[in-house]
Amino acid sequence: MSVVRWDDVDRARGRIEGIAHRTPIETSTTVDSLCGGSVTFKCENFQKTGSFKIRGAANAVSLLTDAERARGVCAASSGNYAQALAFAASRVGVEARIVMPENANPSKIAATKGYGAEIVFCEPGHAGRTGATARIRRETGAVLVHSHDDPAVIAGQGTAVCELIEDVGDLDVILAPLGGGGLLSGTVVAAKHLLPNVRVLGCEPAGADDAARGLRDGKRIVDFVPDTVADGLRTPLGENTFEIIRELVDDIVVVPEAEILPAMRFVWERMKVVIEPSSAVAVAPLLRGQLDVAGLRVGVILSGGNVDLDAMRFPS
Amino acid sequence: MSVVRWDDVDRARGRIEGIAHRTPIETSTTVDSLCGGSVTFKCENFQKTGSFKIRGAANAVSLLTDAERARGVCAASSGNYAQALAFAASRVGVEARIVMPENANPSKIAATKGYGAEIVFCEPGHAGRTGATARIRRETGAVLVHSHDDPAVIAGQGTAVCELIEDVGDLDVILAPLGGGGLLSGTVVAAKHLLPNVRVLGCEPAGADDAARGLRDGKRIVDFVPDTVADGLRTPLGENTFEIIRELVDDIVVVPEAEILPAMRFVWERMKVVIEPSSAVAVAPLLRGQLDVAGLRVGVILSGGNVDLDAMRFPS
Repeated sequence: MSVVRWDDVDRARGRIEGIAHRTPIETSTTVDSLCGGSVTFKCENFQKTGSFKIRGAANAVSLLTDAERARGVCAASSGNYAQALAFAASRVGVEARIVMPENANPSKIAATKGYGAEIVFCEPGHAGRTGATARIRRETGAVLVHSHDDPAVIAGQGTAVCELIEDVGDLDVILAPLGGGGLLSGTVVAAKHLLPNVRVLGCEPAGADDAARGLRDGKRIVDFVPDTVADGLRTPLGENTFEIIRELVDDIVVVPEAEILPAMRFVWERMKVVIEPSSAVAVAPLLRGQLDVAGLRVGVILSGGNVDLDAMRFPS
Repeated sequence: MSVVRWDDVDRARGRIEGIAHRTPIETSTTVDSLCGGSVTFKCENFQKTGSFKIRGAANAVSLLTDAERARGVCAASSGNYAQALAFAASRVGVEARIVMPENANPSKIAATKGYGAEIVFCEPGHAGRTGATARIRRETGAVLVHSHDDPAVIAGQGTAVCELIEDVGDLDVILAPLGGGGLLSGTVVAAKHLLPNVRVLGCEPAGADDAARGLRDGKRIVDFVPDTVADGLRTPLGENTFEIIRELVDDIVVVPEAEILPAMRFVWERMKVVIEPSSAVAVAPLLRGQLDVAGLRVGVILSGGNVDLDAMRFPS
């Protein structure tokens, strides 16, 4: 039995209301004609803080006891989850301490600070991160809310697909990006309850295909050096997400690195919607025939839109 | 009495149905807090062919007589109007011939061809353009549908603000980008009918401020060399748009060139929505205090989202 069940997702829906947006869905005739299916995109790039992560963070924060709220929360994240937890905590008056590597993107540091969190810098890498997190917990008693393996976080992430299914009705296939596995785990738990026959596929970049390899061998891979442009998907699976995905997800699609930025660009150019590379990993398999979805109703979760535009040269 | 009246816009609404989308509106708490107003964006960047231009083109094409339809349509455009007229004509089985300069953007040439139009190349500049258009009309009898001075085109462009006002109700100020003046003219005709007290402002880039200067002197300026990053706003006013704008528009806001790309980037980054530089010209005055809209309800027409991403370096 999965550590996260439908009831957990269902209850999360009420808890995140008023903090997370109900995001719109979009379609694209060009995408449909390229893949032969009928594709609906769930636009979590328009979500508060720019990604789906606010759903899980808000659910987890809402479940804290009064004593835990007084101690505050902490987590390690250099990306979207940092902003999400900071925002969710600030909304209910809970202190947040976020461990970020010293070399984290300055704009993400600023955004996280902007939501009122205290940033604790650490040396880049696993050891620096866990050391700093452990120290914070010891010194402040803060509650660790893990970015993708906390059951309440996973349940919160499952709320996006509930809205998608409410909006479009039946679906044959659902695609979600796969990094730490929080989004995919929550998605599959909810989707398989609502649509027992739906196939749920995780989309993983070739440069961080630890889930595909680990699931093949039946053993979670923790020790690998990711080399992917999808900066939100460099994280290994957690213990819980590994188990949920192993039990419920139908397949993992490994997306060639060379397909990711072209897919991102395609969405920007044709749909006029800013998505980040991690989201493009769930779009790419539809554009050049990697996945056969002819005649099928496909749901794609566009997980976020936080792109570092400093890395781009604007036209002049 | 204006050459385009409310009735013309009102009738255009029914004619463009099924060809142009009803586009969504968006809001941004960050924009509101920066300007102190309550801003609603009308997202014509999500419009069919990527800009509002399809509205005017579709309206004009729908008004052709059978004899005119048989002769086809023509126009000169290197940008959004080329695609719009090509698409609108193809939808009703009318041939379109589009005059484009030899140095036009290859992706825009391809898109226009993709909608089934015949491209006629000319030398860049006014003389080449008008020469080629005259030759087409002489040789084929094609009907010229001018990109921004045809009354039916102007009326069609006015339909966007009708939808905006239906969606948000009352507004105090409406901002629209100003190039050839088709969008602003249609907008002001419709808006002043629906909301007699609304102020309508045209937003013009400093590097192509022919409208601001011409209206000040009471004389249309045709002979100028634009030098603006807003590639959709390099066109001089037409005879009709000059008169409509002179009669009805409350003021012209001249936007410094240095503000345009930062405003575009702001919208991409914060709203996750791809707009082109021309659209950003109507956003920039709200971001750094150029326009005082404290306490006001503001409508902004985001005119299009066709950016040449070839000119941008994607992150790697």
